[in-house]
Amino acid sequence: MTTPLNERRIANAIRVLAMDAVQKANSGHPGAPMGMADIADVVWREFLNHNPTNPQWPNRDRFVLSNGHGSMLQYALLHLTGYDLSIADLQQFRQLHSKTPGHPELGYAPGIETTTGPLGQGIANAVGFALAEKTLAAQFNKDDLSVVDHFTYCFLGDGCLMEGVSHEACSLAGTLGLGKLVAYYDDNGISIDGEVEGWFSDDTEQRFLAYGWQVLKVDGHDADALRAATLEAKAETGKPTLIICKTIIGLGSPNKQGKEDCHGAPLGNDEIALTRQALGWTEEAFVIPADIYAAWDAKDKGAKSEAAWNETFAAYAAKYPTEAAELKRRVSGDLPADFVAQADAYIAEVNAKAETIATRKASQNALQAFGPLLPEILGGSADLAGSNLTLWKGCVGVQDNPAGNYVHYGVREFGMTAIANGVALHGGFIPYVATFLMFMEYARNAVRMSALMKQRVIHVYTHDSIGLGEDGPTHQPVEQIASLRGTPNLNTWRPCDTVEAAISWKSALVRSEGPTALIFSRQNLPFQARTDAQIADVAKGGYVLAKEKGELKAIIIATGSEVSLAMEAYAQLEGVRVVSMPCAEEFVKQDAAYREAVLPANIRARVAVEAAHVDYWWKFVGLDGRVIGMTTYGESAPAKDLYQHFGITTDAVVAAVKEITA
Amino acid sequence: MTTPLNERRIANAIRVLAMDAVQKANSGHPGAPMGMADIADVVWREFLNHNPTNPQWPNRDRFVLSNGHGSMLQYALLHLTGYDLSIADLQQFRQLHSKTPGHPELGYAPGIETTTGPLGQGIANAVGFALAEKTLAAQFNKDDLSVVDHFTYCFLGDGCLMEGVSHEACSLAGTLGLGKLVAYYDDNGISIDGEVEGWFSDDTEQRFLAYGWQVLKVDGHDADALRAATLEAKAETGKPTLIICKTIIGLGSPNKQGKEDCHGAPLGNDEIALTRQALGWTEEAFVIPADIYAAWDAKDKGAKSEAAWNETFAAYAAKYPTEAAELKRRVSGDLPADFVAQADAYIAEVNAKAETIATRKASQNALQAFGPLLPEILGGSADLAGSNLTLWKGCVGVQDNPAGNYVHYGVREFGMTAIANGVALHGGFIPYVATFLMFMEYARNAVRMSALMKQRVIHVYTHDSIGLGEDGPTHQPVEQIASLRGTPNLNTWRPCDTVEAAISWKSALVRSEGPTALIFSRQNLPFQARTDAQIADVAKGGYVLAKEKGELKAIIIATGSEVSLAMEAYAQLEGVRVVSMPCAEEFVKQDAAYREAVLPANIRARVAVEAAHVDYWWKFVGLDGRVIGMTTYGESAPAKDLYQHFGITTDAVVAAVKEITA
Repeated sequence: MTTPLNERRIANAIRVLAMDAVQKANSGHPGAPMGMADIADVVWREFLNHNPTNPQWPNRDRFVLSNGHGSMLQYALLHLTGYDLSIADLQQFRQLHSKTPGHPELGYAPGIETTTGPLGQGIANAVGFALAEKTLAAQFNKDDLSVVDHFTYCFLGDGCLMEGVSHEACSLAGTLGLGKLVAYYDDNGISIDGEVEGWFSDDTEQRFLAYGWQVLKVDGHDADALRAATLEAKAETGKPTLIICKTIIGLGSPNKQGKEDCHGAPLGNDEIALTRQALGWTEEAFVIPADIYAAWDAKDKGAKSEAAWNETFAAYAAKYPTEAAELKRRVSGDLPADFVAQADAYIAEVNAKAETIATRKASQNALQAFGPLLPEILGGSADLAGSNLTLWKGCVGVQDNPAGNYVHYGVREFGMTAIANGVALHGGFIPYVATFLMFMEYARNAVRMSALMKQRVIHVYTHDSIGLGEDGPTHQPVEQIASLRGTPNLNTWRPCDTVEAAISWKSALVRSEGPTALIFSRQNLPFQARTDAQIADVAKGGYVLAKEKGELKAIIIATGSEVSLAMEAYAQLEGVRVVSMPCAEEFVKQDAAYREAVLPANIRARVAVEAAHVDYWWKFVGLDGRVIGMTTYGESAPAKDLYQHFGITTDAVVAAVKEITA
Repeated sequence: MTTPLNERRIANAIRVLAMDAVQKANSGHPGAPMGMADIADVVWREFLNHNPTNPQWPNRDRFVLSNGHGSMLQYALLHLTGYDLSIADLQQFRQLHSKTPGHPELGYAPGIETTTGPLGQGIANAVGFALAEKTLAAQFNKDDLSVVDHFTYCFLGDGCLMEGVSHEACSLAGTLGLGKLVAYYDDNGISIDGEVEGWFSDDTEQRFLAYGWQVLKVDGHDADALRAATLEAKAETGKPTLIICKTIIGLGSPNKQGKEDCHGAPLGNDEIALTRQALGWTEEAFVIPADIYAAWDAKDKGAKSEAAWNETFAAYAAKYPTEAAELKRRVSGDLPADFVAQADAYIAEVNAKAETIATRKASQNALQAFGPLLPEILGGSADLAGSNLTLWKGCVGVQDNPAGNYVHYGVREFGMTAIANGVALHGGFIPYVATFLMFMEYARNAVRMSALMKQRVIHVYTHDSIGLGEDGPTHQPVEQIASLRGTPNLNTWRPCDTVEAAISWKSALVRSEGPTALIFSRQNLPFQARTDAQIADVAKGGYVLAKEKGELKAIIIATGSEVSLAMEAYAQLEGVRVVSMPCAEEFVKQDAAYREAVLPANIRARVAVEAAHVDYWWKFVGLDGRVIGMTTYGESAPAKDLYQHFGITTDAVVAAVKEITA
C-alpha cells in the first residue's frame, strides 16, 4: 500500500457507500467492497470501456462480479460512474421493488451483466463472455475493421476459487486461449468460517499456470502495481490472465478489517464512525462530494468511446453491408425473418417421412435442418457429442477455428452450462449444451440461473430414463424431469417422436424469453400419425393425440417414450383418449377453454404414464387417478427388461384404466 | 513398456475378461480395463491389503474405481483374486438381477466399496475414505497398537479430472494432508469426443502440486516404475499422492487401441480375435488358465493379513477394552444402547421449554444435546458454520487435531457431500454436512448417490425459503424441496419448531438405512403445543396438530415456517384441522389406517401451504384442493415483505379454505 488511506478519497467513496448501505439495510456484505475498492478504482476509471448512458452498447467491456455478495461494490461503481442508479436507489439496498437487490440481479440495475451470488458461476459466465467475444469477433471482424473488440473483466474471491465450477471454466478458458479475459482475485485470506488457511491452501498461481493462464501477483491496494498488471494482462492476447491481488478485507474499518466479522454483516454505527475517521471521510452517509463524482464520471468518456465505435461500425456497414446487417440481427436476438416458415416446412417434411428413430437422432436431424439457417447457434456437449448427437454436418470446433460454432466442452457439465449462460448474455449467439439427463444434476444450479436470468440457452439432455438400459441407476433419471419442470421460467420438453422433437427444437429456438430443456431418448420411438390440426397443437404443450371411441370415460396422459404404450393401451380400450403432453409448462399456460377441451374437469378417471418419478403427475390426475412410473432407482439391464421389471407396460396402463373406470 | 504384450499373461487376463464380457453384453467400456490392466496388476497383486473371503474386514485397504465405466476392470479383479464373483456372474454383465451391473454398484458384487460412474465422485469418495481412516486412526490408535491402519487406492481418468468435484475434493485432501491416499491417473489422452488436447490441456502435475500433493509420473505399462512409484507414494505420509500413468487405452486391440473407438463400445468379434492373437491368448472366452488364477489368488494372503490384524486387535482389546468395544460399536453402525432413551428425554425437555427460535438454532441445540452422546458424528459445513449453526461446543476441527469431529470443508458443497459419502461408506462415522438449501444444488448428484447407496449421511440445509429475506432469488429455494422429496430412499424433514427439529435429528440419526435431509429456517418459528401422543406421532412424518372444532370440513396441510400460518387460520375457522407434515416420505410409509385417520379420503377440501413450489402438494390435495406457495422466483427484501408480496399469508389460507368449502 503506497498511498495513505485518507488520501484515497476516490476509492473511499466505494467504501463509505458500501458500509452505509449495508448498515441502512441492516444486512449485506461490506468486507469485499471495502477490500476491493482500490482494484475497482483502477479497473473502472482507467480501463473499463463502457458508456453509462447506454448500458446496452454492444461493444462495451463486460464486467462480472463473481463474488456477488459484494454487490454494493458494483452498485457504488454504477452510481458513481453515471449509470441510472441514484443515491435513493442505493438507500433502497435489499428492499422490495428496488433496483439494488442483495446480489446483482440482471434486469434490476442498469449495467449489471449477469446475476451473481452462487459462487464460482460468475467467473464461468465471464469465460462465456470472453468466448462469445472471441467467436463473434472471428465471425465478423475484417482485417481492416474490427467491430467486435472488447475485454471481459471479472472480480472473484476465494469462494469462487474453491468451487469446482471455477476449475471447469478456467481450465477450458486456458485451453481455448481466451486472451481478453482478465480476472482479479481478491486474495484476502478470509472466508465466512475465518482464516482460510485451514481449508484452502492451494497455490492458486501454480493452479492457474497449470491451466495455461498468465498469472500476476500484486498488492491489491497499490494502484501502480494494479495498473501495470492490467496493462500486462491486456498485452497477453493468447492467454487469459489472473491477477492475484493481496488485499485486506474491510480495509478502513479499524477493528474489523482483516477479519471475517466484516464479511457478511453491517459494521455497526460505532465502527462506521471510526471508519469514517480512519478514511478521513467527513461527509454524512450517502453524500459524495462533487469532485469525487467528477473523478468517477464516465459518461463523457463512454459517449466518446461509443461514438468512435459507431464510426467504425458505419465504415464496416458501408463496406460489408450484409455482415453488418447480420451482426445487428444477431445482437438483437431476432431470428431470420423466414425461420418460422422454414421450420414449419421442415416439420411437415418430418411428418411425411414418418420415421421411427430415437428422439436424440430426431434432435440431430432437427439441428441439421435448423443449424444452417441459424449461424448464431453455438453448440456443444460435455464430451458426449457421439451419444447426445449434437454434432451436425456444419459443425466446426472453436478449438480448431475461432470462427467455429461448436465447443467441445470436455467433461464439465456445470462449467459448460454457466459458460453458455455467459454466451447467451453476451448476445449474438443462441447456445445449446448437452449431456445425459442425469448429469444435468452436475449443472443444476446453472440451469436454474439461465431460467432466473431469462436467457435463451437450450439444454439438450439425452438418455432420458430407464430406457437407456445397461448403464444402470447412476445414469437413469428418475426425479430429474420433475426437478426441471418445477424450475420457474424453464420450459421442459419430452417429445414422443420425430415430429414432437422437431417442434420442441423450434419452440426452444423461438423462445427468446427463457431457456428450454429438451429431453430425448436413447432408444427408438415409434412415429405417431397426426392431422395438421394436431401438429399445430403440439406447440401448446399438451393435446389430444387419440380421440376416444364412443363416450369419453377415461384419459391417458403420456410423454416421450411412454406415448407409444398409451397408444397401444388405447387400441384395447373404449371411451379412452390419449393426451400427449410433451411440455406441461406450455400446456398450463393455455387458456382455460383449451385446457378443458383437452382434459375435461369432470373426467376424473385419469392415468398418467411416464418412465420418471410418479409424483409430478398427481397435479393432472388427482386423488382418483393413477400414475404409472418410477418410485425407486433403476437397474442395469437391457431397456426392455427394465420396462417389464418396473411395470411400465401397456398391460399396466390398460389395467389402471380398467381399475379406475370399474 | 518393458515387457512384450504377449508375456503379460497375468494382466492380459483382465484384458480378455473385459473385452469378452462387454462383447457378450453387447454394451460396455473395454478401453479403460485394457489400458489400466498393468496398473491393476501391480496395485492389486503387490500392494492391496484385502481379504477376498471377508470383504467387510474393517482394516482392509479401500479401492475405488472413480472411472466407474471401466467396471469390468473391477469385476475381473474381484473374480481373479477370489471374491465370490464367478465366471457365470461375469457372463451376466449388465443383465437384470446380476451381480455385475454396468457400473460398480454398492451391494451387488462383494468388494465394491462405493458406487461409481458419475465422474469425479469416486475420487471424492476416496478422499472421504482416507479422511475417515485418518480420523478414526487418530481417535483409536495407541502409541503401541494401531488398529486402524490402511491405505485408500483410487483409479481415475481424465473425465474425473475435468469434473469440478475433483478440484474440490483434491484441494481439500491436500490441505488436510491425507498421506494414505494413492491415486492413479489413467492418462491415455482420449475421451469420448476423441483426443483430449482440444479441450483438456491442463498440466495435471502442476495442478496437483498446487494442491499440496506428491505427484509422480510413470509409464502405466511399466511394472517396475509402477511399483517404485507406489512405494514412494506409501512412503510419503504427509501428502496424498497422484501417480500420473501414461497409458494406451484399449491396449492389445491392434486396430482400436489408442483411439476413442474402444472407449465405450464392444470391440466386435473380429477385433477380439485379433486382440487374442496380439496378446498371445489362446483360451476361449471366459476361460482363465489355472496358473493365471493362481497368480491372482489373494485368498491366502488376505486371510493371513486379517489374522495378523485380529491378533493386534485382540491385544488392543486386552489392553484397552473400552476403546475396543467402542470401535466395534462404531464400525457396526449401532448407536449407543441408551441413545433413543436419551434423545426422547431431550425431546421432552425441548417441549417443556417451548422456545420460539429459528429451526436452524433448534438444530444446533439438538446437535449440542446429541453430539456428546455420539462420538461417531463427523460434522461440517461448506464455509457456513456460523449461518448453518453446525458447530456445537464439543466440535474440534480435524485441520487442527486429526482426532477431531468437525471438517471445515470450505466453499465446496459437491466435494463435501461426496467426501461425506466416502466417510459413511468407510464406517465408524455418521457424517453430517451443511450448506444453504439452495446450494444443495451444487451437491445435488452426491446427495442422490448417498440415497442410492443407502448411506447414513445427514444433509443439513438452512435458509430454506423466501424466509431468508434479503439475499434474494439466487439464495431462495423454490423447487429444491420437491427435488429432495422426489429422491428415492432420501427422507426430507422440514420441521416447524423446536420439537419437530429435535425429532428430525433423532430420526436422521437412527435411520441406518439411508440419508436424511434436514431443512431449517433462518427466521424464528413459533413453538407449537402438543400432547405426548402428538409428539409420538411426529416421527410418522405427518400428524394432526390441531383437531377440527365440530365436524371435519376441510384440512390444512403445512410444513415448517408455514405451520404457524395454518394455525392462525385454524383459529379463525370451524371444522378445519391442521396436519403438520414435516416428512412426507415417512407419512406415506405409514399404514393405510393411520393415513386415513390423518387425511380422511372423503374430505376433498384440502389446502396445502408451504413457501416452496406448489407442485409437490397436488399429491395430497388433489384436483379440488388449493396450494398456497411459490410458482416464481423470490425477490430480495425483508422476509415479512416477501411473504406478503407472494401471498403466503394467514389471510390467503383462510380465503382458500372458505373458497373450497363454499
